[in-house]
Order: sequence, then C-alpha cells, then structure tokens
Amino acid sequence: MEDFKLYIDGQWVDTEEKAEVLDKYSMEPYASVPQASEKEVDQAVKAAEDAYNEGPLPPYERFKILKKVSELMQERKEDLALTITKEAGKPLKQARTEIDRATQTVELSAEEAKRISGEGVPVEASPGSENRMAFTIRVPVGVVGAISPFNFPMNLVCHKIAPAIAAGNAVVLKPASKTPVTALKLASLFHEAGLRKGLFNVVIGSGSTVGNQMMQDERISLYTFTGSSKVGLKLKQNTGMNKLILELGNNSPVIIDKHADIDKAAENTAAKSYAFAGQTCISVQRLYVHEEVKKEFENKFIQALKKLKVGDPNDPDTDVGPMIGEKEAEAAVEWIEEAKSGGATVLHGGTRKGALLEPTVLTDVDESMKVVSEEVFAPVVSILSFSNLKEGVKEVNKSKYGLQGGIFTQNVNNAFYAARNVQVGGFMVNDSSQYRVDLMPYGGVKESGWGKEGPKYTIEDMTEERLVVMNLDDPS
Amino acid sequence: MEDFKLYIDGQWVDTEEKAEVLDKYSMEPYASVPQASEKEVDQAVKAAEDAYNEGPLPPYERFKILKKVSELMQERKEDLALTITKEAGKPLKQARTEIDRATQTVELSAEEAKRISGEGVPVEASPGSENRMAFTIRVPVGVVGAISPFNFPMNLVCHKIAPAIAAGNAVVLKPASKTPVTALKLASLFHEAGLRKGLFNVVIGSGSTVGNQMMQDERISLYTFTGSSKVGLKLKQNTGMNKLILELGNNSPVIIDKHADIDKAAENTAAKSYAFAGQTCISVQRLYVHEEVKKEFENKFIQALKKLKVGDPNDPDTDVGPMIGEKEAEAAVEWIEEAKSGGATVLHGGTRKGALLEPTVLTDVDESMKVVSEEVFAPVVSILSFSNLKEGVKEVNKSKYGLQGGIFTQNVNNAFYAARNVQVGGFMVNDSSQYRVDLMPYGGVKESGWGKEGPKYTIEDMTEERLVVMNLDDPS
Amino acid sequence: MEDFKLYIDGQWVDTEEKAEVLDKYSMEPYASVPQASEKEVDQAVKAAEDAYNEGPLPPYERFKILKKVSELMQERKEDLALTITKEAGKPLKQARTEIDRATQTVELSAEEAKRISGEGVPVEASPGSENRMAFTIRVPVGVVGAISPFNFPMNLVCHKIAPAIAAGNAVVLKPASKTPVTALKLASLFHEAGLRKGLFNVVIGSGSTVGNQMMQDERISLYTFTGSSKVGLKLKQNTGMNKLILELGNNSPVIIDKHADIDKAAENTAAKSYAFAGQTCISVQRLYVHEEVKKEFENKFIQALKKLKVGDPNDPDTDVGPMIGEKEAEAAVEWIEEAKSGGATVLHGGTRKGALLEPTVLTDVDESMKVVSEEVFAPVVSILSFSNLKEGVKEVNKSKYGLQGGIFTQNVNNAFYAARNVQVGGFMVNDSSQYRVDLMPYGGVKESGWGKEGPKYTIEDMTEERLVVMNLDDPS
Amino acid sequence: MEDFKLYIDGQWVDTEEKAEVLDKYSMEPYASVPQASEKEVDQAVKAAEDAYNEGPLPPYERFKILKKVSELMQERKEDLALTITKEAGKPLKQARTEIDRATQTVELSAEEAKRISGEGVPVEASPGSENRMAFTIRVPVGVVGAISPFNFPMNLVCHKIAPAIAAGNAVVLKPASKTPVTALKLASLFHEAGLRKGLFNVVIGSGSTVGNQMMQDERISLYTFTGSSKVGLKLKQNTGMNKLILELGNNSPVIIDKHADIDKAAENTAAKSYAFAGQTCISVQRLYVHEEVKKEFENKFIQALKKLKVGDPNDPDTDVGPMIGEKEAEAAVEWIEEAKSGGATVLHGGTRKGALLEPTVLTDVDESMKVVSEEVFAPVVSILSFSNLKEGVKEVNKSKYGLQGGIFTQNVNNAFYAARNVQVGGFMVNDSSQYRVDLMPYGGVKESGWGKEGPKYTIEDMTEERLVVMNLDDPS
Repeated sequence: MEDFKLYIDGQWVDTEEKAEVLDKYSMEPYASVPQASEKEVDQAVKAAEDAYNEGPLPPYERFKILKKVSELMQERKEDLALTITKEAGKPLKQARTEIDRATQTVELSAEEAKRISGEGVPVEASPGSENRMAFTIRVPVGVVGAISPFNFPMNLVCHKIAPAIAAGNAVVLKPASKTPVTALKLASLFHEAGLRKGLFNVVIGSGSTVGNQMMQDERISLYTFTGSSKVGLKLKQNTGMNKLILELGNNSPVIIDKHADIDKAAENTAAKSYAFAGQTCISVQRLYVHEEVKKEFENKFIQALKKLKVGDPNDPDTDVGPMIGEKEAEAAVEWIEEAKSGGATVLHGGTRKGALLEPTVLTDVDESMKVVSEEVFAPVVSILSFSNLKEGVKEVNKSKYGLQGGIFTQNVNNAFYAARNVQVGGFMVNDSSQYRVDLMPYGGVKESGWGKEGPKYTIEDMTEERLVVMNLDDPS
Repeated sequence: MEDFKLYIDGQWVDTEEKAEVLDKYSMEPYASVPQASEKEVDQAVKAAEDAYNEGPLPPYERFKILKKVSELMQERKEDLALTITKEAGKPLKQARTEIDRATQTVELSAEEAKRISGEGVPVEASPGSENRMAFTIRVPVGVVGAISPFNFPMNLVCHKIAPAIAAGNAVVLKPASKTPVTALKLASLFHEAGLRKGLFNVVIGSGSTVGNQMMQDERISLYTFTGSSKVGLKLKQNTGMNKLILELGNNSPVIIDKHADIDKAAENTAAKSYAFAGQTCISVQRLYVHEEVKKEFENKFIQALKKLKVGDPNDPDTDVGPMIGEKEAEAAVEWIEEAKSGGATVLHGGTRKGALLEPTVLTDVDESMKVVSEEVFAPVVSILSFSNLKEGVKEVNKSKYGLQGGIFTQNVNNAFYAARNVQVGGFMVNDSSQYRVDLMPYGGVKESGWGKEGPKYTIEDMTEERLVVMNLDDPS
Repeated sequence: MEDFKLYIDGQWVDTEEKAEVLDKYSMEPYASVPQASEKEVDQAVKAAEDAYNEGPLPPYERFKILKKVSELMQERKEDLALTITKEAGKPLKQARTEIDRATQTVELSAEEAKRISGEGVPVEASPGSENRMAFTIRVPVGVVGAISPFNFPMNLVCHKIAPAIAAGNAVVLKPASKTPVTALKLASLFHEAGLRKGLFNVVIGSGSTVGNQMMQDERISLYTFTGSSKVGLKLKQNTGMNKLILELGNNSPVIIDKHADIDKAAENTAAKSYAFAGQTCISVQRLYVHEEVKKEFENKFIQALKKLKVGDPNDPDTDVGPMIGEKEAEAAVEWIEEAKSGGATVLHGGTRKGALLEPTVLTDVDESMKVVSEEVFAPVVSILSFSNLKEGVKEVNKSKYGLQGGIFTQNVNNAFYAARNVQVGGFMVNDSSQYRVDLMPYGGVKESGWGKEGPKYTIEDMTEERLVVMNLDDPS
Repeated sequence: MEDFKLYIDGQWVDTEEKAEVLDKYSMEPYASVPQASEKEVDQAVKAAEDAYNEGPLPPYERFKILKKVSELMQERKEDLALTITKEAGKPLKQARTEIDRATQTVELSAEEAKRISGEGVPVEASPGSENRMAFTIRVPVGVVGAISPFNFPMNLVCHKIAPAIAAGNAVVLKPASKTPVTALKLASLFHEAGLRKGLFNVVIGSGSTVGNQMMQDERISLYTFTGSSKVGLKLKQNTGMNKLILELGNNSPVIIDKHADIDKAAENTAAKSYAFAGQTCISVQRLYVHEEVKKEFENKFIQALKKLKVGDPNDPDTDVGPMIGEKEAEAAVEWIEEAKSGGATVLHGGTRKGALLEPTVLTDVDESMKVVSEEVFAPVVSILSFSNLKEGVKEVNKSKYGLQGGIFTQNVNNAFYAARNVQVGGFMVNDSSQYRVDLMPYGGVKESGWGKEGPKYTIEDMTEERLVVMNLDDPS
C-alpha cells in the first residue's frame, strides 16, 4: 500500500491523520493519504496567496509549464490510467481515454495562456467623449479554490487547475475524498515541470471539514466546483460576493425522432448511457422516443446494450464496471424499485452485485419518478415517448436541469427546432447528450450550473475584464 | 397631487394601499402611488411569464419599440427631468442630462437587439471529431426581476429594462420606493410604443415586502439589482441557481500623481465629487494625492469647489442639491464627526441644513474611518497622501470595493502602471472615477458587484449561450 | 423633363454637356443630367480630399446624419421608388422594396458608426515582451471612389456611400450612366441631413471617361465597385496599391435535391429567377436538379413561372418588366439561340418584344454554352441534372464564379454537405441564391469579387487597423 | 560544396541546370542548388493542386505536423542558424534569434490550426427573415504561391508556409534565389514530420522565370509575397482576381519627442537601425528629433552606435555584418553621395569595404533625397528635426510608405497623438519601428502592402469565410 502526501507551497507535506483509498472493484484499500487539518488548509491558502502576490508568471512561462505537464501526462499515461481504474473503478479503456482528454485540456490551457487579451471599446462614439479612447485588459482573479468530483479524477481536475494557472492565478485544490491519488500525481507533474511554489496546492479531506473551511476563507477569490446541485447551491450562498464556476447535476435527455436513423441512434445511445456506469454528468438518462418508432428503437437499444461487456474494470475490454460504492448502487436500485412500484417496466437489468449494477432500461415511467426527474448517476436509462416533436420538447424541458441533450433525426427542420428549443447548455444533433470535447464551452442552465468549462471559457471566467479609458489632450 | 397606478399585463392597476412620494427639496408630498400587495406582485410575475411563453418578439420588432421609446423620451424630456428633480431632489441640469443618457441607453439597446448572435466552435479540431461542426446560439433567459435605486430613477431603470426587452425577455420592475414615478412614466412610454402586454410590468413597494416576494418567486430566472452590497449579497444567497447582475457599492478612489496637471485635476475632481450630492456609485470619495503636490492640490480643489452652486435643485444653475432624505444627511454628518474625533481635519463644509449637506472635504484621515472605508454616498471627500506610486496603489487597493477609479498624470508609464494595478472594473486616465457613458461595460469587482451593465454587455448576461454540435454523415 | 445637377463640395453644379436619361419602359427621355468633364471630376476629388483632411466627423455626428437620411428616405419612399421604376425599368413593387432595403442599409451604417473599435493583442505572451501591451485602433482610409451599377440604383449606392461616411471617409460617387437620378436624389437627402460639404460628391459620366479618370487619381485611397468582372479586373490592375471592394458577376446555382420539398422549391426558384428580369447578381441562373425529381420539378417550375405577371413596370402587380435596354435583350436572345443550336431545349419563353424578354427556361444544356458558363443577366434559367449529390456539387463548382448559391433539401446531412462544399461566398439552405438581407456579409469568391458588403463588413474594409504597442517602464 | 535538390510532391528532385549559392561574407560558393525549369514548376503546382483536392488534413493532424516541425527546428537550431549566416551573411546571433522566432511562428500556426471558426450572423433581425438563422464557416483557399525574400530566409518563409498548412491549403514556395538552402532545409523538416506529399513544394529560380510562371498559373488561388513594392505591384496587376498578401517596402520613421528619455531612445534606435545591416523592412531609416533635444540625441546616438561590433557575421559577437551583395552596398553609397551633394552631412560612416558598409548617420537631409524618401535597405539612417509634434507627424506622413513607425516620449498625450495620427500599420510607443513579435498583426498601409502577417491573421487571409443561411420550417 503506497503512502502519499499533501502538496503545499511546493513541498510534500505529511499529517497525522490518514485515510485509506479503496480499490473500487476489490474494495480493498490500496493507498493511504493524509487528511488535512485546519492548519494545512490554512497553509495551502496562504501559500497560494503569497505566490499570487509575487506577481503573475509571464504568459509564455505559463505556456511552457503547462505544455510540459501535458507531455509528462502522455509519458506516464499507463500509470495514470491504472490509478484511475483503481481508485475510481473506471474501466481501463475509459481511464486511458480520460488521460488523453486531460492531456488535451492541459495543452489547450497552455495555448490559451498566450491568447488572453481585451478589446477596444468605442467610448468616443458617445456624445461628449470625442477625445477619449478606451480598451479593456484582462487580469487574474487571485486565489482559486477548486473542489473536484470522483468521476473524472484527472480530467475534471485539469479543467480547473490548468486554466487557473494559464490565467495567472494560484490554486488550492481539494479533490474528491474517494479519488485523491490521481490529483496528487498531477501535482507531482506540475512540480516536475517547474511550477513556482505555492501556485498549485493540494489538500485532502471531506467536504464537511476541508470544503467548509475553504468556503469560508476570504483570501479565496473564486470557487470552481463540480458536483451535486445541493453543494453547488451551498457554495453560492456562503462565499460572499466571490466569483463561481459550478458544474452541477443533470438528467440528460436524448430525443429519438421518427426521422432518425434508428440503428445508429440505438447503437450510440446504448454506448453513451452506460459509460463509467452512468456516472457522468451527461450520460444519457432520459430517452424520448417518437411513438411510431418506439418499439423498433427499444429492441435495437437492448440488442446494442447486450453487447456491452460488464465486469472487472481492469479488463481492457470491459465497457461497464462497478459504481463508485456499494451504497450508491443500493440507492440506484431503490429508485428503480420506486419506479416499478409506480408502474414502470424493467426492459433490461435492474439487479446488482455489490457495486456492480447491471445496465438497466425502464419504460412506462413518468416525471413523478426519481429515475426521471432526479439525477440518477447510475447505469439506469428511462424510455419515454411522444407523438409530436413540439410536445416532446415541452416534456424534455420540464426538468429542473439543463446541462446537455441531443436528438437523432435526419430532418433539418426537426434538428434545428430541437436545437433552438431544448433548454440546455449544449445540444447534439445525431449524437447523445454525452458528447464532450475539451475545447468546447461546457456548462448548464437552470440548476445545472453557472459559468462554462473549456480552457478558453474558464480563463474568461477566471480573469476580470477591466475597462481603461484615456481622456486625451492635445500634444504638448 | 397626482395619482399613479401600477402597470401589470399592459393595464394600469390600482390598489387599496397607497404611499405618498415626497418632493425631496420641499419635503412635501407631491404624488400618490399604489403599493403592491402579494397579489399584484404575483399577477405581475404571471403576466411576465405568460408573455415570455408566447414566444419572443422578432428582433426587429424589439428594435422598433425601443427606438420609439427613445424618441418619446426626448419628446417628453422636460417633464421627465422635472419628475426626477421632484422625486429625487436631483439638480435640474443633472436631471436633464439623465434623460439624455437614458435616451442613449434605450437607443443602444434597440440597436443591440439586432446584433445578438453566437459564434463558431471548432470542435472538428479535436481528435475524433473531424466530421462534426458546431456553433452557439443565444436564447433569452425568461423572466427578469429588476430592482432599481433612487439615484438614477430613469437611467438605471433603463439599463435594466431596455436590455431585457432587447434580449427577448419579460420584466417585472420594482423601482426604489422613494422614486417610483419616473419608472411609471417610463412604463407609459413603452405602452405608447406598443410593447406586447406582459413583457414589462411595474410593481411598487418596499424591499422587505415586494422585494422579498420577488426574490422567492421561482418563475423569475434572473435578477438585476443596483443598490447596497448588503442587499446584493442577500439576493445572491436567496435566489437559488438563478442568474444575477448586481451593481453594488463603492468608495471611489482617484489618484493625483506628481506628474498631474493639477489645475485640471482639481477642477475635474471637485465637480465629480459632489454631483447629485455624492449619491452616485462612482462619485469621487477618496483622493490619493502625491505628497509633493498635496498642498497645491488641496488649495485648488477647495477653490474649484467654492464655485459650485449649492441649493434648490429646481434652479437650473444648481450644482449640488439636497440628499435623498434628512436621515441620510444626518448619517453622513455622524460619519464626519466620527472621523473628526479620530483626528480628521475638515478643510471645507461639514454642516447640513435639513437634507442639504455642504460639500465637505476631509484630510488627516485613515482607513479606520468610515468616510474612507465604507461607501459614504454623500457630498463628502477625503484626501489622503502617498509618497510613491506603487505604495499609493497598494493603499487604494485596500478597499473591499472595486467599481471604478482614476488617476491624473501626464506620464505614460505611471498612467499604465495604475491602470494595470488598481483593482477596479473601470479605470480612468486623466479623469475621475465618475466617468460613465452608457455604451461602455460598467461593473465592479470585489464587493462592488457581479456582471456588467451597458446594453451590449447586459444582453450577454440576459441571454444563455447554447452550443449546438452537428454530427454529420455523408450525403445520401 | 426634369433637369438635374452634379453634387460637388456641397453645391449643385451644372455643366455644359448634358445627357438624357430614358424611361426604360417607354424608352422616352424623362430627365436631363450634366456630364462631368475632367474639371468636375478633379473638383469632386479635391473637395473630398479637403473634407477628409479637416478631420473626421465625430462618430455620433455620423450616426445622426445617416439616421436622418434613413428617415428622409422613408418619407420620400414613393417618389424614390417611382424614380427607380422610371430610370431602371424595375417593377414598382420591387422598387419599393429596394427603398425599404436601402433604408435598412443606411440605418445599419448609422448604427455601425458607433461600433468601430480595435482589439487587444497579447504581445506580452511573446518571450521577451513581458513588459509590453498592445491593442489595435481603426482609422478611416481617406477618399473612397465609388462606382455603382444600374440594377439597384439606390441600395447598391447606399452600400457604398453609407459605410464610407460611417467609417469617417469622404466619397466621390459615379453612378451608372443609365440610372443617375436616384443617386442625385440620395445626395440631396444627405445635403438636407446636414452632411459637411465635400464628404459626399456625385459626378456623372461614362466609365471610359469619368471612371478612368477616377481610376488614375492618386488622391483616392479605396475603390468600391459593383459591376462586371471585366471592369473589376481593370480596376485591380490600374489602381496601384489601393484598397478595393469589388462585387462582380455570377451565374448563380441552386441545387434541387431528391429530398427537397419540390413544391416549395419550384415556387421559390421561379420567383427568384426572374425578379428584375434576372438582372441581379444573384438571380438564379443554373438549376441542378436530381434526376429522380427532374420531371416533377420542371413541371412545377413552369407552372409557378406562368403565374408571374410580365409587362409594364409601373403596374404595381408586375413581377417581370423590361431589361435595361433593347441591346441587352437582343444579346440574351443570341445566347439562347446559341444554346439551341448546341442542342438546348426551350421549355418556356425565349422570345422578346423590345427590351421585354419572356421568362425563359432551358434544358439539355451544358457548360460549353454561355447561358450556363457566363453571367446571363437576363430572365433566362437553365436546368441541369445530376444523379448523386457529390457529383452535382462538382458540376456546380466548375463555374469561374462564386457569389451565392443554394440547395433545397429536407435532409440535414445533404444540406451541410452542400453548404461546406459549394464554392461560393454565401449559401442558402432551402432558399435560392437570391437571398440577401443588408446586414449580412455579402461577396463572392473566385471571379465574383473581393471584399464584403454589408455595413459592418464594409466598414472593416474601409478602415485600416493599426497596431499600437506600448513598451512600458516602471512608474516614476 | 553541398548539393541540394528541389522538393516536389514529397520527392527530392534534381534538374540539369544548377546555380551556386555564395557565402555572403567570403563571397565563395558554398552550395549548389538545382534551377527549376518550366516543367518542375508545373509539376510542383500540379502536385499542390492534387494534394489539395484530396481534401484537407484534419485540423488536429495539421497541428501535430506543425508542432513537430517547430520541435525539429529547435533540435537543429545551430545548423539552421549557420546556414542563414552563410547564405545571407546575417550575424550569427541574429541568425540564432531568427530560428527562435521561426519556431514561434510555426508553433503559433500549429495552435491556430485548431482555432479556425466562423461566427453567427443575426439575419433573423432583418424584417422578413424571422424564421432564418445563419453562421459563417471558414474554408481553405486552395493552392498558395509563396515568394519569399533573402533577409529572413527562415522566418519569413515560415510566415507563409506554416499558416498556409495550418489553414488546410497546399503551397508552392519559391525562396529568394540568393538564400534557397534554408528553405530546402525547412522542407526536409516538414518531410520528416510526415506532411502528406504535395502539400508543400519548393522550386528554385529567378523571379523573371519561376516567379513569372507562378504568377500566370491559374491553379494558384492566392499569392503571398514579401519584397519590393515594384514586384508587389506587378503581382497585383497580373494575377487576375486572385487573393494577395503583400509585405512590401518601408522607410521606417521614429520620432524622438522632447519628452523622451534620450538615453534609452538613443541606445534603442542605434541598435535597431543597423541590425542585419539595415536590411529589414522595419529597420529605422528616418529619425525625426525634436529640435530642443536634437544635439543631445545625435551625440548619444553616435556614442551608442560606436559600441556596435562590425564585421564577420560568423563571429558570435558581431552586430553588423555585410550587406547581401557588393552591388547593393555600392548602390547605398551612391544614395549617400547623392544626399551629400544635396547638402547632407555625414555624422558617421559612409564608406564601404566590399559588401560591408559602415553604419552611417546623415543629417541636414530632406525629402528630395532617396535616403529619406525611398527604402534604403542598408545601414543608413537619416536624422531630421521638427519643432512641434503635430508638424513632425505631418512630415513623417509624407512618405509613400506606411509599414511601421515609433515614438519615444514619456508624455501620455504625445504618445497617443502620434499613435493615432502616424499613417502606418504598426506603431510603437517608446520603441523603434523595428519591433516585431510573430504573433502580432504585421502589415503596412499605402505602398507598404496588403493583408497581414502573423499566423492568426494570415490564416484569416488564407481562408474564405462563407455565409450559410438556414431557411427553417416548422418541425414535421
């Protein structure tokens, strides 16, 4: 069992209190990590504040360090992927993909560090301001407090840390307490790449202690968080006038139109519904299928789903592995049972073995059931139907969430009708809600969040745009 | 005494409970307005929601209506200016300027209604996404709840309503309870311009009743507020995951560098410190003067200030009129007294007659005094000194606020050093913090607020940007 | 018969030599205009240069004048439309539409005058430039020489003059010699709106005299021209390193896919092929129809075309009037005959009466025929067929032109395949090549031109973007 | 003596005719290169056209190849720098800098390949277009013909090739006949990095043969050229309606204001006037010095200039080496003599030894002299004076050129007055005209050129922006 340390002010710091990290498939402890007390959190924030106050690294320096980190990430790819598989239970092939994507995230952030700039503002076009000129500049916000989830222990951390560094900020990160090792390994890459001490710090602990302390620290200027809507709201309410980036829950909808290519739609949605056991913010949860094609779609969907390999995440062929914990799997089964007792039919799956929940398909469901209206975050999909696209879109929009969605259709008018009317942050035509590439703007509406991820967009959120107006006189 | 009505769903609505609006100079009632009860607030929000759900007006229609309102505003300029002078006690010439600026605000919003668009997103540059293309679209947020202050009863209302309409939203406005009449007159202009019923509604009442009810109404998607940092924070904490635009307090700093043209600096800052009795978010409050020029500056500042005409706001020559209420003037005097007992010297003013507080200049002050560290919102200016620009900037940045600031200097390096390092949303070179034209981005950092005003920028905040990704196949 | 004068330096100037302007339907003279000699052209350019050198009008002043012109244009709409019908032979309802569109062009230019600005350039992100900052500013180019065509005597003049004025330039206009009166009436609107003398000048004469003289005048900084590719090329070759905006020929293609709604496609293309007797740069000339739907489309197209009213342009119901001259109509018939002798079949039309050419449809045509490969600029449409969309697009792209094109299809993949592969400046999905609104970027590739029209885009072309780099030192 | 080959269609191609490349310091031949005949030029263009027609490389592939080239460039830095020193006679330290800058150019182009996208166009804001939506896409132009100069045999080649590849185009390059070896070595880096055959081809020969043939080849869509204004004009006149990027001559001005820091100004301008023997488009040629500081500046300038080490470019300490040929040095001396006979005083230098011309300073000069009005392209600087900044700027603007310029001043108003009024593409405050970093937009006005360099900007010029308008119906 390997021992890890916190990373504070460029040092590896040990503490008295420790926690074990479980292998999520065997449920055996496989690593030990220190738990930060109030002291270490304070040190980390102070280190960040001091590092920030020294003045920002030059943009080209930020570029070089982030570029180096992205290269190191590819060099250590296999080790990092195995770490994810161990501590998150994510199937290995998906873990490898995550490292590739994280590499992109850091590489893009590196490049964006060289592209931060303001714009002209034509104040001279205002009556009485003829002799003036104005432009904006972008300045870093200061210390960023980052709190990250278990489901992408590397890439969602990178989406927070890399843009923060690229923008000229300092960061304190609290990774998910179930998956802290990947984050510590990332810190070691930054260390190796030569990042100035204090600009990136990692503290480990629960949300109720470390998270709460961070939330109340006035030296932090911006919080970036991915997680539940409940905790997101708490952050909004308890961090004064600080800036926020919140990526929260979703119950992602995909529409199957009567003009769809049903084979492709079934194949695609089956794969995108169960990746990482449905534990991603945008895995397909609600399928709205046109009644004329519902039967056909259901059959093909179940056929496709049966091809998925379920089981040991260490097996490189596995598609669907365990959930993050047995408790979580139990809760999902409870929601399935609740739906069944409300009239739902289980078309496939519905049973679990430990943390391993079979890919599950429900139908005859409605909005009153949690599997439809709440974020299930498990390999559970519900099929609903509609008879007319406008009505279908209205149904989709009843959700309190709005992160991403999609439609399958060959018809250009239907595609654009849905794109313009489904209330989400991102909408896919002939693809599932689960599509994400790291350069794109990503973020939800309604209770799904605030602000955008994607390095270019996060950097905008992690800098202040200041207007400078010159009141110009004649030359002398 | 004229009687006014609420404006709900395109109708003028009366209520049982009434409130009197005082002439702020004579302190006599001059108008009577209805007070909205829970029922009217609910009706207003429902009217807005229904109007929004009918679908947005076409952009060119929004343009035409707003353009018409801007023209009507100029036609009724004198009446509207007199209304402001009456209910806000604002000197008539400043009230006229406010109508001209509000006209600009509405005209710019009209034009921006035709300029709402998204942008391309190069998802095809991500490995594996070669066959895709993507772009964003901007969609209205829904119902906007607007809460506006007394100090610009027309222009700060227009900065909320006009962009909201331009963006395709519906609005419920609660104007300041001391200055509701101007807002109702604005509603009548929209009515006359032919705005579809329900898209703009005005309810009147106190923050603790009407404001609170609006804050809890889940049908409202975005709140836009100008006022105190305290109330702003309350809104952030109590409006779920709703979007926010908050324009809050400031204690605006201006630096007088040793390289400044002292005559111009004195003349300019004296005028900009006392306009509308210091009751604007960006009126000069803290003057940081280089020690080498401090004496000279003080003399010239007081000379300039003595030229200001103080008194009846109805007199078209008056520069400085009464504060919004006697209570507010008393509070300002208390803060002056507190400063004096802490060692401050009064260089000019310091006394009041009713709501009329003499333009006041203090020196020998420090950060422990409220006149320096809090927003005084009265005709009270403090002069501090510094011996070195870098140190001066550090002092300036100790404030918890950061709306706007300025520097007077002829030196190009000093001008840019200050512009790049003073922590504010807007910074003026050779001008006071008080510079604002309505097309520019306006908004603060730290406790001064969230989001930006200026029609183009507010429209961005009042729309959601949705990503649409097309997964494209070969043609068939 | 009304007499008109040139407009030079704010004065109405007469000359000895005169030319008659014909009513294009009756072919009777209806107005007399002076012909500019070398002297008047020189005066006009000098007036423009002097006016420019006085310094640009403030942006808000430009806005106000252009706004006023757009309002006057609506006030005089009927007179202006009748002028176009008279001197261009354009059907009255299309002439009225032209005035409405010209109003938009001027109004948009007015608004864009307030939106000219540069952008930040992050030079500090280059190694060694850490202490620098940079931004761009936009400055007017100087004197603009505008040469405009007969087919939109008002709107295509406005697309040149209004952005030039909005950008802060001075202009010398030579309108088409067959339609000079509309341009002079436009000049009178600018005069009435109070434009400073010299900023807009109109000279009249032939391309071979006045045009040539303008081409050689070194005081002109930018030429903007709409007309034939031949003259466009001559301008490029003979104007030194001057800037150019050239809107030249096209033989506009529209694809009718097998997935199209054939009724809509036929209705739309029939109307868009013959408007103003096919004398617009983007009227449909080549129809590429999928072989499976060719017969159906042909029948419906001819049915739709038979509903068009042909004849006297003064009749408000007329859809298709005379061509600009009998010579031009003769030339079109010659091309039709050439095609017939090469094997083409005339499905409809093909005969003329004076300048009035019947709406004509050809099939069995190929690229070797002028009606296909050259710009016909007459009410003549050719129908070609294809068996596979990829091949169809290849055929379309064989043209030397590339202004605008379109496709009719309900299929989303086919729509985007065509949009991404047809080589044109603008491509319409489920609409004809002829779609244009005045705010959009408009301009072709290949031999169809250089630069873009649309006020926002033309202003970019009519200003220079200058980079300003500040090398900043420590404050002193 | 090393033998090199042409690079066509991914092959190294030999020809019968050869030319020797001279070591520009020893004037001994040091390499032999093939001369392309008509056949090889035709093959190269055909290879490019075919490669383009295969369809563009995916953007991420372009990124990877260009990134690899930038890395190889750093690996081979010393060899490449020595090649430049040999064939261009450029001092070694400047040659090393050139490789570093070229690395930046290629790296930036790599990154920009992932950032090509269009924008939304709000056509729905036009009356009658409410049901439409529109956006633009960017498509490559096709085959690019690149013709490059001797003075930056690597970096100015990279500014053409790298953005062309990044944009998805194919290129045929004709490097300067005096410095072809560096270009061939660059081709070998692209070859090694795995660029698809045909996308980059190098042919060698004189402008009058190879250049002319390229100019007439209709398969080339865009020409990019750096060189004399005379040849640039010829390209404009002889390339049909093809697109152009032309970086031409300049006689770069720098203003020394009376508010300048004279020490810094003298030090800086002395270094920037003579780098690479004044043979860069933006080396300082005209110094406009305020009369009050002229004597002081002259003294300090000459003092600074005396510190420059003149001589063998292979010596790593050399600042000023030989000119590109003896003929060119002779011509410069002739111009100096012409100036002297017109009354000019030589403050320093004026004599040559072979191709080595001493750094030369003239004063008492005027515009009638070639050293002032033409591009001297030699280590020759003229000092002029002015008594008032506005007048000084007028003098500066009399030039027919307008690439870059600068001012030294501490005064903010003077700095901005000059920046807003000097007619150039780029203007430096407290720096010389010679400032360039590769990310910035670079290009002149007046006879200094067309279009902009800098990867981001060149990619805009090397792509077409196509508007796509969707005419949308109700869903079905």
